Amino acid sequence: MSHITPDGVRAAAARIRPLVKRTPVITSSEFDAAARARVFFKCENLQTGGAFKIRGASNLILSIPPADLSRGVVAFSSGNHAIAVAIAARHAGAAATIVMPADAPRSKLDSARAHGARIVPYDRLRESREAIAARILEESGATLVPPFDHPLIMAGQGTAALELLEDAPDLDALIAPVGGGGLLSGCATIAKDMRPSIRLFGVEPADGNDTFLSLQAGERRSIPLPQTIADGLRAPQPGALTFPIIRQLVEQILLVTDDEIRAAVKFLLTRLKILVEPSGAVGAAALLFGKLQGGIGKVGVILSGGNMDLDQLVTYGS
Amino acid sequence: MSHITPDGVRAAAARIRPLVKRTPVITSSEFDAAARARVFFKCENLQTGGAFKIRGASNLILSIPPADLSRGVVAFSSGNHAIAVAIAARHAGAAATIVMPADAPRSKLDSARAHGARIVPYDRLRESREAIAARILEESGATLVPPFDHPLIMAGQGTAALELLEDAPDLDALIAPVGGGGLLSGCATIAKDMRPSIRLFGVEPADGNDTFLSLQAGERRSIPLPQTIADGLRAPQPGALTFPIIRQLVEQILLVTDDEIRAAVKFLLTRLKILVEPSGAVGAAALLFGKLQGGIGKVGVILSGGNMDLDQLVTYGS
Repeated sequence: MSHITPDGVRAAAARIRPLVKRTPVITSSEFDAAARARVFFKCENLQTGGAFKIRGASNLILSIPPADLSRGVVAFSSGNHAIAVAIAARHAGAAATIVMPADAPRSKLDSARAHGARIVPYDRLRESREAIAARILEESGATLVPPFDHPLIMAGQGTAALELLEDAPDLDALIAPVGGGGLLSGCATIAKDMRPSIRLFGVEPADGNDTFLSLQAGERRSIPLPQTIADGLRAPQPGALTFPIIRQLVEQILLVTDDEIRAAVKFLLTRLKILVEPSGAVGAAALLFGKLQGGIGKVGVILSGGNMDLDQLVTYGS
Repeated sequence: MSHITPDGVRAAAARIRPLVKRTPVITSSEFDAAARARVFFKCENLQTGGAFKIRGASNLILSIPPADLSRGVVAFSSGNHAIAVAIAARHAGAAATIVMPADAPRSKLDSARAHGARIVPYDRLRESREAIAARILEESGATLVPPFDHPLIMAGQGTAALELLEDAPDLDALIAPVGGGGLLSGCATIAKDMRPSIRLFGVEPADGNDTFLSLQAGERRSIPLPQTIADGLRAPQPGALTFPIIRQLVEQILLVTDDEIRAAVKFLLTRLKILVEPSGAVGAAALLFGKLQGGIGKVGVILSGGNMDLDQLVTYGS
């Protein structure tokens, strides 16, 4: 498959079923009152591996021919994609090597290691993870599992929206976080097919606004490595494959500050009783702080992950 | 209805539907590996009001005749029952007065107040909440909504097990926390009816072992006010109505220490990404620390609530 289609997302849903949970969709009258909308949260923080990433990773890994699979898989990731590749590779019986930034959250490093992956740490500011991964690929003949810019990854991530719209078919809008754009492009593709009237929004941290700027410019733009607590959304530019889809289908990229993200994480924890990591809480932050203009009735929000260290949470105050 | 029956639980399920969420049942391969069982968590921490208590409170309040309802309702509670009565009373259009211990968790006091209840604080060690409530009842003509020892309360709480067994019909065992025994007696009643082979267990904090001691003695025993972080399980003796049902249907009361409860709260938060308060985590603690002897395959666990202050969580360490 050279590009993503709605049927590609449906095929992914069937392929990944053995590994991936159908996560619950939850609602909260307290959140609705604060957001002035009816909000349906797709809880990918409760997903296997603690994030939606298992959807794309397993869709790609379960599509690798056996002869190639025996040479293993390689990924570079700030965390959740690493955990997902480790889990999906172990399930498929393949060795996984993950190139991870040395300053990734401890919980994410530990989790990837616990699932049997070999971790190769690198310095986010000085080294190129792509160069390191390329060297490993050349030496091993392993298959690269890219974090977002691949049709099978994008189609896998889209299954989150497919399930959400099956459970809440009459959404007026859908909001998803944007790092490299894999989740948003996959979700947009299937959502517009299932419900042509739906309005689609992405959310970025204010300092990681590469997709926002790219949409303004009409072409992909790159920014310096973003400084934000949303460690999963630090991709410096949208993907070559994800960006055209976002440009075509997504109405607007909403921007949220780190303080707004912290407030959303705390609201979700203390009122909804779920732990959502900063990157996963940007959609909730956008709604809590009125970033979505105008009267939208029913909004689906993808809470994309829940992997964060408790000592980070403590710094948010009580 | 003078006593609880399986059909009473089914009637409650229909009655309370407008107010009560069908909470998700979640699983975790990490938890299963640690507990050596397949565990199905009924997430009442995600329930309206943050605990299962809305089930019983709304079942009773929605059964009060209109003429009585106009004189309001009164409850005495350490917290979650207070929040539930406030929410159900507001829904029914009745004024709620809640007699609450002054040292109840701040989040629970705030939440009951936010839902429109009048709070009457009392000193847990020096004053009798029953006496205070009795005085208010006499003055107002309001209806008492007891925390556990009433057939409509017990039947309402049982709807948690009814839903769990609808979602996971082939459970070998069911575990629920025990304070006054409302949840356990209601769940036991419906669970044995739906699945006669099911084994039923209660869990108490080691220092709040009144039901454990009562079962040993064969009659209700009272203990001094328990010292435990499980603030919702401090009832000093089982109820007159709940105890006979527990004695008849429940195989064993498991005991867990406060340290075991803390570890369970942290496991549930960091691995399963859900906030469960100490009282709600005793079933998970019992499984994590091997309190359930022998080979039980599929176990349902009621995570009964999620209302706790973040500053309490911080003291657990990271």
